Amino acid sequence: MENLGLCTDLYELTMAQSYLEHGKTDTAVFSLFVRKLPENRNFLVSCGLETLVQALERFKFRDEEIKYLKSLRRFKDFFLDFLKEYEFRGNLYAIPEGRIFFQNEPVIQVEGSLPEVQILETLVINTVHFQTVIASKAVRSYLVSRGKALVDFGFRRAHGLEAGIYAARASYIAGFAGTSNLEAGRRFGIPVFGTVAHSYIMVFDSEEDAFRAFADSFPQSPVFLIDTYDTVSAAEKVVKLAKEGVPVIGVRIDSGDVESLSREVRRILDGAGLKDVKIIVSGGVDEYRIEEWLSKGCPIDAFGVGTRFITSDDAPHLDMAYKLVEYAGEPKVKTSPGKVTFPYKRQVCRFYSGNVMDHDEVVVFGSETGGEKLVGQVIRNGTLTEKLPSLDEIRETLMRDLERLPEGLKGLERADYEVIIK
Amino acid sequence: MENLGLCTDLYELTMAQSYLEHGKTDTAVFSLFVRKLPENRNFLVSCGLETLVQALERFKFRDEEIKYLKSLRRFKDFFLDFLKEYEFRGNLYAIPEGRIFFQNEPVIQVEGSLPEVQILETLVINTVHFQTVIASKAVRSYLVSRGKALVDFGFRRAHGLEAGIYAARASYIAGFAGTSNLEAGRRFGIPVFGTVAHSYIMVFDSEEDAFRAFADSFPQSPVFLIDTYDTVSAAEKVVKLAKEGVPVIGVRIDSGDVESLSREVRRILDGAGLKDVKIIVSGGVDEYRIEEWLSKGCPIDAFGVGTRFITSDDAPHLDMAYKLVEYAGEPKVKTSPGKVTFPYKRQVCRFYSGNVMDHDEVVVFGSETGGEKLVGQVIRNGTLTEKLPSLDEIRETLMRDLERLPEGLKGLERADYEVIIK
Repeated sequence: MENLGLCTDLYELTMAQSYLEHGKTDTAVFSLFVRKLPENRNFLVSCGLETLVQALERFKFRDEEIKYLKSLRRFKDFFLDFLKEYEFRGNLYAIPEGRIFFQNEPVIQVEGSLPEVQILETLVINTVHFQTVIASKAVRSYLVSRGKALVDFGFRRAHGLEAGIYAARASYIAGFAGTSNLEAGRRFGIPVFGTVAHSYIMVFDSEEDAFRAFADSFPQSPVFLIDTYDTVSAAEKVVKLAKEGVPVIGVRIDSGDVESLSREVRRILDGAGLKDVKIIVSGGVDEYRIEEWLSKGCPIDAFGVGTRFITSDDAPHLDMAYKLVEYAGEPKVKTSPGKVTFPYKRQVCRFYSGNVMDHDEVVVFGSETGGEKLVGQVIRNGTLTEKLPSLDEIRETLMRDLERLPEGLKGLERADYEVIIK
Repeated sequence: MENLGLCTDLYELTMAQSYLEHGKTDTAVFSLFVRKLPENRNFLVSCGLETLVQALERFKFRDEEIKYLKSLRRFKDFFLDFLKEYEFRGNLYAIPEGRIFFQNEPVIQVEGSLPEVQILETLVINTVHFQTVIASKAVRSYLVSRGKALVDFGFRRAHGLEAGIYAARASYIAGFAGTSNLEAGRRFGIPVFGTVAHSYIMVFDSEEDAFRAFADSFPQSPVFLIDTYDTVSAAEKVVKLAKEGVPVIGVRIDSGDVESLSREVRRILDGAGLKDVKIIVSGGVDEYRIEEWLSKGCPIDAFGVGTRFITSDDAPHLDMAYKLVEYAGEPKVKTSPGKVTFPYKRQVCRFYSGNVMDHDEVVVFGSETGGEKLVGQVIRNGTLTEKLPSLDEIRETLMRDLERLPEGLKGLERADYEVIIK
């Protein structure tokens, strides 16, 4: 799929053709925002802008796409010609990746001729929604991890390969130390981690043989998976091997009663003088379990976080919409029940109390009277206004915002932040 | 991303190198199965096999992939040479796409030399897990839809573009009439549907002008979106236009109290003799709402089903694993708490009572004593045994299975089906 033109919903194109036929080609502004945060989210992390910018460059209709659209027998030739020439020449405004944002704040705003910006709806929502969902989930684990390392182990149960790759990106922004996902490692330069699965342990004649073989193959990084048969006796085997001089840097527990097993394994390792050997826990890990285990003082040094975060299973979608807010200079408002929108292109102004975020004001763009402006212009007339930040810069942006986040919003309990719409 | 070799977890490759170093290259069988169905699923639909077969063909390591792996400084040259030559030459067994299956039944089994089949773990789970999640969610809407048409409107909130495209495929298999997703329409030949969004209504001077303009542009398929301002008065405008000779085939309600609005709109349309004009409902639709509305007799003719199905939001992941069950002819069993596996390559035998499924038996492959065999060989020594079925054939396969499904399993209440493991 070289060109992404067909990565849209049919109705975007029927609308665009009709706009052109009826002279509705004045400048429009669409705003991407979340109406209401999910029950289990105190804030959101802007994520996916770079991916959107890359997708916009590929949002084109060439012969293959036009041929398919022609086969639908709905579109007129003048419109197919319009699509063939299409490239985004408008403006794009965004709350930068890594910034924290809240309900009713325009994370993306797209401005351009109405047909030109209408047909981007599906692409804009799809790219920014997904990574924002994942970053906003992953950061919750980061916030309760008390400095312990988190690694993305979720690739296998992500919603497709692409989802796994971009979720690794989002989780690295959200403070994860790395990923097991090699394609994400290559594409984004994220550190990669991994040792062995249970199958490895099972093909050797004994668990001990498997440990020996793995240490032999990877003497620089031997982490032993100890829960294939009996976790405690496997920990004792690790001690025995260490005494023989086999290198050991960590053990991984992937099942069972983590609370008691982590304590028992720590006791066994410490008793043998292996105080530096790390305990890594995986299997069904999410922010709730991390918080529970660490608050109870379980001696866990790192977590593999997988399925629950990579599907954001307690909130796999946000109530995120791309809504028309301005057309030909006029305000546009929808009044459907529960779906009221606010007109005009907007700026988000953040006010601090000392170094802590106090409240945000969402004001009409250009009418700011104070506060830190979050929304910046990213694309002007189809061209990037400046180089986008690197992944590490985005991650640092989030880390700075997390320092300024009110304490109440950092925990897993529900807390609200004031957003005033003017 | 031409080659998919890096679409795997790092540990698959560390294990494979160590297997090769320690002579662990005998024939292994891995089984992909679901340990336990989610609370809200009475059965699963096998989906994603074709996508897996296509991905296997692209699971290769070429210069670019090798260069990245080399940069990790973990792998030896002999192993990188092995990867460079890698192509899948083993056997693949599957429960065909569109067949209904249950807990502990091997939906995919992969057989080949241990390193060769180990490194496919992430790819196999990722492709089959996701589409199985979606098909198994979508079919629930189909089963309660009483013959009303369902259309996939979820692209925008799928977990990435690829997720949206394959979810459209899975939902079509599960009985949906079509999708709004043009790329899925092109790629899989799925019928596409779509009319207009609220933004379209809002840019015209009046709702009536917008309706007229749309009917003018698409006289063959005018479906009017009537909830932008006031649904009931919009329905009255549609009646007025119809009396003037403007073509009308349907109206869409996307918000509000669907139960009362659908009745009121039907009354208005019928009162004007517009009995053939369809009422389409979208916005937050899932199987629970479809069941509620239709059981109350709401006059709804079709549903746009979106976010909730495309993220499978009540069960966004399955407890699906790819486990070693046989190595060098020997049974392999893991005994971790809650993660017990059953050894050997297996067949699933389905027994019927009349035309209704009665129970399944999961037996060691080759030891069948009766019943319908669900598992078939799809790939032999790296080559397809026969052409895979078309999308319409897969859909028909599921429709036949749904006819034979016990009534209790068709509803939204939890019901169990007996699976005997021998």
